[in-house]
Amino acid sequence: MQVIVNISLKEGVLDPQGLAIARSLNDLGFQEVDGIRVGKRIVLEVDETDEARLHQRVAKMCETLLSNTVIEDYDIDIPDGQ
Amino acid sequence: MQVIVNISLKEGVLDPQGLAIARSLNDLGFQEVDGIRVGKRIVLEVDETDEARLHQRVAKMCETLLSNTVIEDYDIDIPDGQ
Repeated sequence: MQVIVNISLKEGVLDPQGLAIARSLNDLGFQEVDGIRVGKRIVLEVDETDEARLHQRVAKMCETLLSNTVIEDYDIDIPDGQ
Repeated sequence: MQVIVNISLKEGVLDPQGLAIARSLNDLGFQEVDGIRVGKRIVLEVDETDEARLHQRVAKMCETLLSNTVIEDYDIDIPDGQ
């Protein structure tokens, strides 16, 4: 099944990449941009059909490797209709 | 308003970062992982209340700076209830 994991910096953690992009957009004439936060979107193909177990295993992957839980949050989305 | 832009590599474009993560997960005992694609998730705060114009401006930002349209696709999501 397909699983989407969104990794984002926790609130309060400085995001220099987001700041740089926001400033560049302002400089390019997009003055309406007030702020940007950049995260990762990881799409996994996992050979597991039980949704509860899938969620549990992917959470373990996030804690183990995919996210740095000191400064990042993750959320797990299993799209319907697979 | 808040806008979420998902940037992903086009199908067929090699994703070495995804391959490396998938292999690492396999090595860590997550044998059920068949494949991974890594993209960016950019959350923008934009000072614009008209949803049609917002979409149009953010599409322009994607074409101009946020994505490399030769190898990347983007999609724009304006969450409801703002």
